[in-house]
Amino acid sequence: MRQNRMILPTLREVPKEAEVISHKLMLRAGLVRQLAAGVYTYLPLGLRVLKKVENIVREEMNKSGAQELMMSVLQPAEVWHNTGRWDDYGPELVRLKDRHDRDFVLGPTHEEVITALIKDEINSYKKLPINVYQIQTKFRDERRPRFGLMRGREFLMKDAYSFHTSWESLNETYDQMYKTYNSIFSRLGLNFRPVEANAGAIGGSGRNHEFMVLADVGEDTIATCTHCDYAANLEQATAHLEYAAAGVAPSADAPVFEKIHTPNTKTIDQLVSSLGVEASSFFKTLLYIIDGKTVAVVVRGDHEVNELKLKGLFDAKSVELADDATIERVTGAPTGFIGPVGLKGVEVIVDEAIANAGAGFAGANERDYHLQNVVPSRDFAAGRVADVRNVLEGDTCPKCKEGKIEFYRGIECGHIFELGTKYSVPVGATYLDENQKAQTMIMGCYGIGVSRIMSAVLEQSNDDNGIIWPMPIAPFQVHLIPVNVKDETQVKVAEQLYARLQQQGVEVLLDDRDERAGVKFKDSDLIGLPVRVTVGKKAEEGIVEFKVRKTGESQELTLEQAFEEILGLVLGH
Amino acid sequence: MRQNRMILPTLREVPKEAEVISHKLMLRAGLVRQLAAGVYTYLPLGLRVLKKVENIVREEMNKSGAQELMMSVLQPAEVWHNTGRWDDYGPELVRLKDRHDRDFVLGPTHEEVITALIKDEINSYKKLPINVYQIQTKFRDERRPRFGLMRGREFLMKDAYSFHTSWESLNETYDQMYKTYNSIFSRLGLNFRPVEANAGAIGGSGRNHEFMVLADVGEDTIATCTHCDYAANLEQATAHLEYAAAGVAPSADAPVFEKIHTPNTKTIDQLVSSLGVEASSFFKTLLYIIDGKTVAVVVRGDHEVNELKLKGLFDAKSVELADDATIERVTGAPTGFIGPVGLKGVEVIVDEAIANAGAGFAGANERDYHLQNVVPSRDFAAGRVADVRNVLEGDTCPKCKEGKIEFYRGIECGHIFELGTKYSVPVGATYLDENQKAQTMIMGCYGIGVSRIMSAVLEQSNDDNGIIWPMPIAPFQVHLIPVNVKDETQVKVAEQLYARLQQQGVEVLLDDRDERAGVKFKDSDLIGLPVRVTVGKKAEEGIVEFKVRKTGESQELTLEQAFEEILGLVLGH
Repeated sequence: MRQNRMILPTLREVPKEAEVISHKLMLRAGLVRQLAAGVYTYLPLGLRVLKKVENIVREEMNKSGAQELMMSVLQPAEVWHNTGRWDDYGPELVRLKDRHDRDFVLGPTHEEVITALIKDEINSYKKLPINVYQIQTKFRDERRPRFGLMRGREFLMKDAYSFHTSWESLNETYDQMYKTYNSIFSRLGLNFRPVEANAGAIGGSGRNHEFMVLADVGEDTIATCTHCDYAANLEQATAHLEYAAAGVAPSADAPVFEKIHTPNTKTIDQLVSSLGVEASSFFKTLLYIIDGKTVAVVVRGDHEVNELKLKGLFDAKSVELADDATIERVTGAPTGFIGPVGLKGVEVIVDEAIANAGAGFAGANERDYHLQNVVPSRDFAAGRVADVRNVLEGDTCPKCKEGKIEFYRGIECGHIFELGTKYSVPVGATYLDENQKAQTMIMGCYGIGVSRIMSAVLEQSNDDNGIIWPMPIAPFQVHLIPVNVKDETQVKVAEQLYARLQQQGVEVLLDDRDERAGVKFKDSDLIGLPVRVTVGKKAEEGIVEFKVRKTGESQELTLEQAFEEILGLVLGH
Repeated sequence: MRQNRMILPTLREVPKEAEVISHKLMLRAGLVRQLAAGVYTYLPLGLRVLKKVENIVREEMNKSGAQELMMSVLQPAEVWHNTGRWDDYGPELVRLKDRHDRDFVLGPTHEEVITALIKDEINSYKKLPINVYQIQTKFRDERRPRFGLMRGREFLMKDAYSFHTSWESLNETYDQMYKTYNSIFSRLGLNFRPVEANAGAIGGSGRNHEFMVLADVGEDTIATCTHCDYAANLEQATAHLEYAAAGVAPSADAPVFEKIHTPNTKTIDQLVSSLGVEASSFFKTLLYIIDGKTVAVVVRGDHEVNELKLKGLFDAKSVELADDATIERVTGAPTGFIGPVGLKGVEVIVDEAIANAGAGFAGANERDYHLQNVVPSRDFAAGRVADVRNVLEGDTCPKCKEGKIEFYRGIECGHIFELGTKYSVPVGATYLDENQKAQTMIMGCYGIGVSRIMSAVLEQSNDDNGIIWPMPIAPFQVHLIPVNVKDETQVKVAEQLYARLQQQGVEVLLDDRDERAGVKFKDSDLIGLPVRVTVGKKAEEGIVEFKVRKTGESQELTLEQAFEEILGLVLGH
């Protein structure tokens, strides 16, 4: 394509609204423009990348045996009422009314619609399993859209849904999708990790994995093992217990607990500095309201409660910290002095890491007092012992029990779920088995954030000068630059090479603009196509400059050599 | 692809909700399923067709030099306020609010958004002209969605927008698009006509043409010439005047007009039968309210007023027939007795076809009376003489003045417009000319109903047994049917041919279902792939049946012959 007439507006200045590198680059290199918060127009260069990502996803999905179809953006509210998600999904669900005042939703996901379709169209076990997918525009009214395409309100997703007669069959397809996702993210040239994850709003009763692209700006923390392949979202990660349980200090045959005066000392930090002990020697107690019921949660002083684990433990819809008034009413003391000893009328959940711990400190449920020499098993009873905390860096890996946990930041670009019957039961999706008996279908679902991947790639592939596109998704493979478009020889040589390369199926961007060389090169680095061929003064001798964006290596080659080199790099000839 | 596991639910019964053949066929052949009125899911077979149509459109657009980009579905209300269309577009515009109570629109078209984008990104005459397009899901809250994909609420469109420094440049691109559209519709294998049309809600001050696919169920009437290539939408069609003017009978030197008693005779039909004269000898007068002003319109008794022409004449926003009360107040007589003679206080518009006519009949503006021997030029003055009527079949062609007008029904599948500055002025889209002076951009826009084309194709390509897909958009090119999947030889022969054809890039649907032969053949006719190869009992001898869906011709061929025949038909080898 010829650059002169192309809508490819590059920016020298870094746009103010962009916080992260990928967002800056996609604006500066003319890939997208914002129309409203979280809503973008893909300019020609950006659309070419999006289509390439889409095609890699499509090819691998087809290879896996999945069938492509396409559902609508508009979904009648009834299907969301059926599964209860009309109420559960919250303000992120975009709702609207049609001219007859009927409620509709702009689909953020399509479990309801596909399950109803399959219910109507597939009746026999003979037709199962099947796996169907679509690549389609989705909507989510994010409270805080940001980071360009990373968290948008309108975005492109691949979503797949599989239907089965048994969990074994679901397991097989799930494993297949796990492999397919690995192939997709590998072909995209991304540094990624599949991690165990929390099912969130999609739900489901089986396994689920997120495919995380590693990047410092990622909104998720991933816990991985230094030794084995364990990897989990922090929301989901666990640690090997023996190690963790040894955390709380003193001795096992501690004296009877006693009150100590701790005036105005409400936080662990304040206690640590006034008492001169480790944070890990405290039994931190928090009051939660879980589906309306008050629950006390006790974790080690240096640990954080993981509310998603808590939610899972109670199979709850809502988990919130109790307010000050509730705390005072339940414990008789103000916030900052809660403790598990003698606490009445509430269930006490004790984190695994302290269930068998030795003596430590805890709040006394009395203003300005704490207790010392509190021993969990001795001084307070747990309603339940459970894993309800976030793991820490340095914890022991729960899988190999040898390596240590370390943290990375990741961008969630894919998520696969074993749903079970979460949607098929309310929708009534059944099939007739070999004995003509109705059975409920078992489901899986599998998503990829196609547009988000563009952001993820840019976070990983850039330098100070701009983007460094991986070959498989580069908008063009070659940037061909005649330095001076008023020089007849340069133009002639460039045009001939342009024609020859295109004939071979190479995607070439020809910078036919009447601009200074410096401007052209700066734009070229910014746009970041894998190969640059510069046609300059030596064009008369049939010599051009051949430069690889990634390595920065450049060499002077004859036209013939450059041609062969490009075919080799681009088409693998 | 293997049919057994494919979601390809064929129906024997004709679904009740489907009125027209294309809608019946797309449901029966498992191309789509309805989710809500005017909202559809594309099943795998339907999606394949849609993608093929999309690709033909894309290829031809690219060939024309247009650039593809992709705008969003969500559009902030402000851009629609800017051009006034927030108010003008009416209830077909889908509106919603986001979580912050800001107004948004689901784009039915993108003039506002693209004009704002181009305004921001293109500043110099050097970058013009350009033509950009997208293929994207659109929304229109139709009052009465119907006929399947023909009039949906969510549909796929190709919309292109061009920007120019002069009308000459716009004319060139418009001509190019006219050619491109002809190529597209020809490649799609459609019987179509480009016709002069009315600009409607898109507007614009230059030419506009609709691309009409001829079909009896079409919602538009097209007037074409029996002799030359004249073709226009009925809303827009004109007739050669000399002929039309001669229509009203009597003589030119008629006596003075006089009242005749016509008790309870209010309609032209009643007058025709009670007076025993032709309908064409009446001057039919109607009262309209045009943007709040009362206007009388006089046409020949056998003619119909064309309200769009009237709207254009007054450059009006609204044109409505006056109610009975207004008629009585203005004319002094009840409805049915209005006439142009002596009418006061209203502008009188006289249709061209009667401006120079001889004597005829008209209402007397008095209950139960008409006038005879009324001569237009003599007895009543026209505020304006204009073409404000629908042409009739048999009228003389306005272009060649030889042929006669005849009517066809058509489905509007494309529409191209010379917009001029309708959008660039309110949006403020200017560029700097050679003298660094700001000038307003001149625009064109060009739409194709991608999903509607699927309906149009089905209307034209079917027989009693089902669909007859044209090769370029057939979901698969070959239907390969082993008659008995329990017969090892048949299966082996079919599988081998399946593999060989796929290797050559032929798209094959393999009917590997364990169904009776009758069911398979019925489904095959219904689905309508261009070529069917049946592997039956003669498979043992290496003989298969080769059948062309369109002609119904079938022959027994050796495997090798069938293979060659398919390559020839499908790939043109």
